Amino acid sequence: MRAVVFEEFKTFPTIKDVERPKPRAGEVLLKVAGAGACHSDVAIYNDFEAGGPGAVPPPFTLGHENSGWVEELGEGVEGFNVGDAYLVYGPIGCGHCKACSRGQDTYCENAAKMPYLGVGLGRDGGMAEYVSVPARNLVPLGDADPVAAAPLADAALTPYHAIKQALPHLAGGGKYALVIGLGGLGQIAVQILKALTGATVIATDMKEDAMRKAEEAGAVTVSGGEGQAQRIRDITGGRGVDAAFDFVGVGPTVQTAAASMARLSRLTVVGIAGGTLEWSFFTNPYESVVTNTYWGTIEDLHEVVDMYKAGQIVPEVHRFSMDEALDAYRKLQAGEISGRAVMVPHGS
Amino acid sequence: MRAVVFEEFKTFPTIKDVERPKPRAGEVLLKVAGAGACHSDVAIYNDFEAGGPGAVPPPFTLGHENSGWVEELGEGVEGFNVGDAYLVYGPIGCGHCKACSRGQDTYCENAAKMPYLGVGLGRDGGMAEYVSVPARNLVPLGDADPVAAAPLADAALTPYHAIKQALPHLAGGGKYALVIGLGGLGQIAVQILKALTGATVIATDMKEDAMRKAEEAGAVTVSGGEGQAQRIRDITGGRGVDAAFDFVGVGPTVQTAAASMARLSRLTVVGIAGGTLEWSFFTNPYESVVTNTYWGTIEDLHEVVDMYKAGQIVPEVHRFSMDEALDAYRKLQAGEISGRAVMVPHGS
Amino acid sequence: MRAVVFEEFKTFPTIKDVERPKPRAGEVLLKVAGAGACHSDVAIYNDFEAGGPGAVPPPFTLGHENSGWVEELGEGVEGFNVGDAYLVYGPIGCGHCKACSRGQDTYCENAAKMPYLGVGLGRDGGMAEYVSVPARNLVPLGDADPVAAAPLADAALTPYHAIKQALPHLAGGGKYALVIGLGGLGQIAVQILKALTGATVIATDMKEDAMRKAEEAGAVTVSGGEGQAQRIRDITGGRGVDAAFDFVGVGPTVQTAAASMARLSRLTVVGIAGGTLEWSFFTNPYESVVTNTYWGTIEDLHEVVDMYKAGQIVPEVHRFSMDEALDAYRKLQAGEISGRAVMVPHGS
Amino acid sequence: MRAVVFEEFKTFPTIKDVERPKPRAGEVLLKVAGAGACHSDVAIYNDFEAGGPGAVPPPFTLGHENSGWVEELGEGVEGFNVGDAYLVYGPIGCGHCKACSRGQDTYCENAAKMPYLGVGLGRDGGMAEYVSVPARNLVPLGDADPVAAAPLADAALTPYHAIKQALPHLAGGGKYALVIGLGGLGQIAVQILKALTGATVIATDMKEDAMRKAEEAGAVTVSGGEGQAQRIRDITGGRGVDAAFDFVGVGPTVQTAAASMARLSRLTVVGIAGGTLEWSFFTNPYESVVTNTYWGTIEDLHEVVDMYKAGQIVPEVHRFSMDEALDAYRKLQAGEISGRAVMVPHGS
Repeated sequence: MRAVVFEEFKTFPTIKDVERPKPRAGEVLLKVAGAGACHSDVAIYNDFEAGGPGAVPPPFTLGHENSGWVEELGEGVEGFNVGDAYLVYGPIGCGHCKACSRGQDTYCENAAKMPYLGVGLGRDGGMAEYVSVPARNLVPLGDADPVAAAPLADAALTPYHAIKQALPHLAGGGKYALVIGLGGLGQIAVQILKALTGATVIATDMKEDAMRKAEEAGAVTVSGGEGQAQRIRDITGGRGVDAAFDFVGVGPTVQTAAASMARLSRLTVVGIAGGTLEWSFFTNPYESVVTNTYWGTIEDLHEVVDMYKAGQIVPEVHRFSMDEALDAYRKLQAGEISGRAVMVPHGS
Repeated sequence: MRAVVFEEFKTFPTIKDVERPKPRAGEVLLKVAGAGACHSDVAIYNDFEAGGPGAVPPPFTLGHENSGWVEELGEGVEGFNVGDAYLVYGPIGCGHCKACSRGQDTYCENAAKMPYLGVGLGRDGGMAEYVSVPARNLVPLGDADPVAAAPLADAALTPYHAIKQALPHLAGGGKYALVIGLGGLGQIAVQILKALTGATVIATDMKEDAMRKAEEAGAVTVSGGEGQAQRIRDITGGRGVDAAFDFVGVGPTVQTAAASMARLSRLTVVGIAGGTLEWSFFTNPYESVVTNTYWGTIEDLHEVVDMYKAGQIVPEVHRFSMDEALDAYRKLQAGEISGRAVMVPHGS
Repeated sequence: MRAVVFEEFKTFPTIKDVERPKPRAGEVLLKVAGAGACHSDVAIYNDFEAGGPGAVPPPFTLGHENSGWVEELGEGVEGFNVGDAYLVYGPIGCGHCKACSRGQDTYCENAAKMPYLGVGLGRDGGMAEYVSVPARNLVPLGDADPVAAAPLADAALTPYHAIKQALPHLAGGGKYALVIGLGGLGQIAVQILKALTGATVIATDMKEDAMRKAEEAGAVTVSGGEGQAQRIRDITGGRGVDAAFDFVGVGPTVQTAAASMARLSRLTVVGIAGGTLEWSFFTNPYESVVTNTYWGTIEDLHEVVDMYKAGQIVPEVHRFSMDEALDAYRKLQAGEISGRAVMVPHGS
Repeated sequence: MRAVVFEEFKTFPTIKDVERPKPRAGEVLLKVAGAGACHSDVAIYNDFEAGGPGAVPPPFTLGHENSGWVEELGEGVEGFNVGDAYLVYGPIGCGHCKACSRGQDTYCENAAKMPYLGVGLGRDGGMAEYVSVPARNLVPLGDADPVAAAPLADAALTPYHAIKQALPHLAGGGKYALVIGLGGLGQIAVQILKALTGATVIATDMKEDAMRKAEEAGAVTVSGGEGQAQRIRDITGGRGVDAAFDFVGVGPTVQTAAASMARLSRLTVVGIAGGTLEWSFFTNPYESVVTNTYWGTIEDLHEVVDMYKAGQIVPEVHRFSMDEALDAYRKLQAGEISGRAVMVPHGS
């Protein structure tokens, strides 16, 4: 079968013929419906260095946002019907530590001993005709379109998890949420916040069309530049926002978010640009918390699929064939993809 | 001034000329904008007996859903401007116990020693030209219409408080809420649930027009009669609802709600009809909780006003003049009021 | 190897020679350290009828409270060393539904399609020399005594889970907890409550020695009989308890608990005696919740083991050899076991 | 009567004869039992400058940790008996905003318009023979010693509030808490953590005797200096602590705390030394939150008193007469007070 393979650090991937995987014990082989191309894929093949932070040693097939139809069951697997559509939870931990036991493989206590981080992350991913994954990583899609669902596995799961932790801060009337960065994840964050809370959603991005799209989804937008934090605060009647989600994570965005917070609020930095914040008792509004987040849990992904089926999350998807997969990555690098590129190996 | 006075148990109220109150220390005198007529007023003058449960000894002016404009400040009161509009939190506890300290006068630990339960509940209420209330019971309305706001003090605060306690059960995607009884409180409950959660809201009532109104507000409706609990469960894919609110509270509605619950859910009985439920370990879905509720907190009422200002709660209000106030009660008793009757003593 | 086998409904188990199990894919074979004898085993072989509620069809080896040392790994299992000691999480669900994904196999959504409920519950359990269990059901014991640990898998996990859900009700100063029924689970409940909360723990049982044991663990005891609820309430200064745990579950205990609750409290019925409560809006203290519970999650069991290692849970254990296993069940039926009987097949 | 009066910025207080206050409407006059001398008093008269941050314009009587016996009731006050002992909640907000309505005057939305921050903070405090305070600020002490209780109003309320917000992070078995700085507040923090949680409490201070005292209260201590964060982490098995409370708040302590945190943990900086932390996505353990805190709520103070009555909080108190009050401040400045200095104007 054909697959998009990451072969060497700092090297653009190639499309190769590889052997179709056999599902091992406890695994399910999926015929791939869709595989999302993610900015972190670019980091994997372009930025990371052997032994460096985040590096996952090649070679392996890319693709950590995957959906597909059950093709074959590995030993000991029951309860799946061939042909049924599933979304794939990407992270894979040891499976038996405390974190994995609650379906939060992202925080596996034995991660350091694991040979990979997940599907398409050190282990062969979904940018191929077939992919084999542990049975417990599968979330049923029912009749929902599996191709458009693929990016939910990261582009929706990550903001969903961040927002879910912040829901107590947004519970009830008169709340304000801030979304910084309106790319793939940020737009879905606006959709999730509008669906799950009664908060006024304030959104900002440097791109005008991204702002328009967020407005269509129900957000109030604020332009960037000097005085932005004050403009945000003005919308809240001076009080500040109850929850902020920074999907960019550079110094200026983190600092703008920090300057926009209300007392008793929650600032979550999602973007991994590594910006820093000079935190101090005196600049932090009382009991406002600052934190980060990483992907989500299997249970979260079940709930993301529920929102997708209910039409509460509508991902913007651009389909590419296997032949066009490398083009998709080139466009992604060039910033020419709005929404999410999904590779569809078997036609749609 | 004129006031609607409850003079004797089991006796219809009368409109009388009474002395205009003077605000005592810590109180604010309001020129009444609106005073809602509530079913519990009918219980007060019609059903309760001296010394019986719920009884508050007459005479006093009715009206526990009040709004008005600041007219005069009592001794020691600061921070209010004459003419500004406020909504009134009705319950009044001792003011210094643990429950009162958190603004939950409904659960005052010294209630047994208090001469009244609240404004219009043993103490003169807002069915008059003026009413005097403790300063801390005032919630600012800003530019929002104070007349339509009046019923929020009970008809919105009660479902809001019940729903707020249930929000953890409704947090996230794929949740279901059930509202039984679509009168004044039930309709507002549907509005609150739609605004604050992403849950599918299932609603039911014996009146067809109440069902239509709930549908317009975004609910899915289910007809009554045999098999109702199963029809509710079917909507949830068999799983049951995550939160239910019974605004009727007779045996059949409580039992229907109980039969509709999912595991890990919350059933709140709001209606005080006194229906019973034969609770057993084996009939209760695992970790589903059953409870009741009573009115709300001052902080809740601030949040209710935030929702009203944001257009998330739109009470249906019918205005009556002071001259028509007794008619309003007669219509209420006859079941001829849909939404909420508001007495407007100074014109609107 | 030898095993205690349940062969037919309503028939006392027998000790038989059976084939030593082979670990299937995803499983680990344990050399059994200890297997607790539980009252529900008695129900399984003595009370249940084919097709009736709770019935799990024989034949299978009993024992759902198990610990042991890793003997052999099934296909696809990694990260375990032969000889290391583990405690076994007993419930086994489908492994891939939402509930199983968070390690709560007790509430598996596909339970109806599963051939068994767990280890020793339809599937061969630990009352044998060896037992094979899914790798994810193993919780590491480190250097802690595995024999005394065995009963924790149920007798500690069940109260731990119930108490953990109630912790928000017991958070902070001035709280009261009530434990009804001071058998194996109730005594451990007292230990857990004393360790994890600052609450005054009120305990009650009909047996005097059980009361003394609870007092040694730090509880205040209350005798049974008329006026018991009032005596409990008096200890709380009239307010009632913030959380109650009824490990008996007959009508009188459930009703006593219900009559002892404070506002905003939580009553959890753990015992499966099926007693009923006539629940009503007017008898339920405001916002007090009534619920039940069933066993716990894998994560809970990790935390139970942490408490055991820290000396916060000290199970009372009586050791029996394989030869004495049927005697242990006979004594259990006769009410002659205080604490927990543990079968130790390989000596200790 | 005599009072310890702060007369001018940057000027040591004096003992003066002043007029005995009359309780205004809504207030209660207390005969002072005890008034704690706090480090923030020193900041008030020694460090702050007119118009600067934290400055409260003189003249006023010091003392924001007060207890006393009811002497006289102001207009409109009911429900208090002359001679009964009460502890005083120090903060005073507008009394009618959302924050004040829930008894959290510390976060009053109208604080900027208020002429003072609280009792002994811009308004006459308890370092006098009598003090007048709002009735709702009183927490009943019953039979408990009011003199030793006085410092609870700040030295216990502040750590209690910080810890209460962190309880969800410390709920259950296997948790770790870190206390940095073992002065008056830190020692009480150790007591509260031991009473309310099952966590292993790790404590550190530069003074050996403070370390010994914390050990007697049940803490595990860790010495300072290089490698301290690693030594803390080692105690937790490498995982880090689930909650940390820094009562010092200089750069090195904040940074040590930050380096000691586990994933999903909570770091609360309580000390106002203004140390900074260079926060970054990559140095923050996933979902660990950083925050600050300020004093507490009235409800918290009720719960603090419950813990005091139960013997769970035992403040270390040194009594000074009115004549010795200025000496007490001199010793406090010189670091010669261990525990808390309490001025006792009427003998004890």
